[in-house]
Amino acid sequence: MLALTILGNNSALPAFGRNPTAQILQTQSEVYLIDCGEGTQLQMSKFKIKKSKIKHIFISHLHGDHYFGLIGLLTSMGLANRTEDVHLHGPSRLIEIINLQLEVANAHLPYKLYFHPLAEEGIIADTATITVESFKVKHRIECWGFIFREKKNKRSILPDRANAYGIPSAFYEQLQKGMDYQNAKGTIIPNAEVTIEAAAAKSYAYCADTIFDIELASKIQGVDLLYHETTYLHALEERAAARFHSTTKQAAEIAKAGNVKKLLIGHFSSKYETLEEFLTEATSVFENTDLALEGACYPL
Amino acid sequence: MLALTILGNNSALPAFGRNPTAQILQTQSEVYLIDCGEGTQLQMSKFKIKKSKIKHIFISHLHGDHYFGLIGLLTSMGLANRTEDVHLHGPSRLIEIINLQLEVANAHLPYKLYFHPLAEEGIIADTATITVESFKVKHRIECWGFIFREKKNKRSILPDRANAYGIPSAFYEQLQKGMDYQNAKGTIIPNAEVTIEAAAAKSYAYCADTIFDIELASKIQGVDLLYHETTYLHALEERAAARFHSTTKQAAEIAKAGNVKKLLIGHFSSKYETLEEFLTEATSVFENTDLALEGACYPL
Repeated sequence: MLALTILGNNSALPAFGRNPTAQILQTQSEVYLIDCGEGTQLQMSKFKIKKSKIKHIFISHLHGDHYFGLIGLLTSMGLANRTEDVHLHGPSRLIEIINLQLEVANAHLPYKLYFHPLAEEGIIADTATITVESFKVKHRIECWGFIFREKKNKRSILPDRANAYGIPSAFYEQLQKGMDYQNAKGTIIPNAEVTIEAAAAKSYAYCADTIFDIELASKIQGVDLLYHETTYLHALEERAAARFHSTTKQAAEIAKAGNVKKLLIGHFSSKYETLEEFLTEATSVFENTDLALEGACYPL
Repeated sequence: MLALTILGNNSALPAFGRNPTAQILQTQSEVYLIDCGEGTQLQMSKFKIKKSKIKHIFISHLHGDHYFGLIGLLTSMGLANRTEDVHLHGPSRLIEIINLQLEVANAHLPYKLYFHPLAEEGIIADTATITVESFKVKHRIECWGFIFREKKNKRSILPDRANAYGIPSAFYEQLQKGMDYQNAKGTIIPNAEVTIEAAAAKSYAYCADTIFDIELASKIQGVDLLYHETTYLHALEERAAARFHSTTKQAAEIAKAGNVKKLLIGHFSSKYETLEEFLTEATSVFENTDLALEGACYPL
């Protein structure tokens, strides 16, 4: 199970009550933060996300609307007496900014902050429940996308049946892996008799800020949920390209070419007060599209 | 006329919907920003303060809850195509942080940002309507307070009377300064016949974050409105001192010794959900006290 909560869906200039980019991805046991625009810690509080549970933070690039809230979140974690490690993944110069801001305040974090600079495409985190891959996207400055892949889930044991067959709990881990059980009399109990298949492992791709780039489709091929920016409506295709951003239809083209199951669009320009047209345009190309709305949770 | 609007009244860790420190001081023609915690630009939008009108920004010290919102505000001013100068007053290393954040984003502000490092006590700004003085306060790191003094207002002309006496408009500026008028026949028209006294020039002192320091009373002597932090209630006097903060009763002692007309208290610790007791304790020492409440405007 993965669940994505949107904390901010607007582009650089906050407008119409919409906030800069930040997203929370939750597994059953872990919480990941993806980008951290100004006010993220306030949005987390509003939408009941516990900052104490975040262990990994991923910053796509160093435009302010994607990280100006980070230093506030990190220092607030410290003020809340956090002692657990935080792993921060982002462009290499991010740590300079954080260190400078801590230095001038004569401040020290009471927890360990491990910084992992983004350098090459590939797996950058491997936790109990997921792996995270980074991939490059094309923007005005160095910018990264991330794919979060749930690890293959274990099979679920049916305890009543396993008991009835006299299978000892010491063998349960092997059952979860799909092995059959052979009892003392030599009888083989087929795994399928005492377990059921796990839910399929899910995947989420976050494309950050990017110009339309059809090569992205191969990088995010087949994910369950794709977030792709749509700063502008189709009519402003030229402006989008000039600013290294994308339009509704372009995001939908990537979703279609990438054979993803569902598309989520966001990073809306401050020039748009309402968002309905974003959905109309994107669904004209790729039907299973949703608007990224602040506070909404998208399970997958 | 001065009017103070509170955008944030909480101490470091945002809590109970309260935001970090930021205040707006308005004269009839100018808007000043005092400190700029995270989310200030969002609070400005909420309380209908136009960021385009701000020309001077004053940052008391480099603890994040007093400036983490600054870079977002400055870049948003740029995204809104501002061309008018901004004057920024703050501790000297503030500009390093701003420059680094602009550099990594490959960003350039479309307006001139003049940085005025705080170095000595005295007048740091002199505008059409006010002067601003800086003074040192005692905190864990370099920290400054500010006094905003309205310039002596001009006398108001009574146009009907001035006309009746045949005073030419070319003489109005001198009338405003209090001069009498002598007409062609040599008759003297006393100034008081054709003008009325202006409202008294007002003053506002902002004491930022400070330990209890009775010497402050002489620095802010007689101001119309004093803002003094009250991070803690009286019972936590020791903790306040250990952290270079003040309590309710200490702020009220400064107001009393400083012979100010009114006291405003804020920078409430995140440990307090409600604020009534802050007011009860402060008024027990200095009666004319108000809580600094977000969104509220205090005219003086």
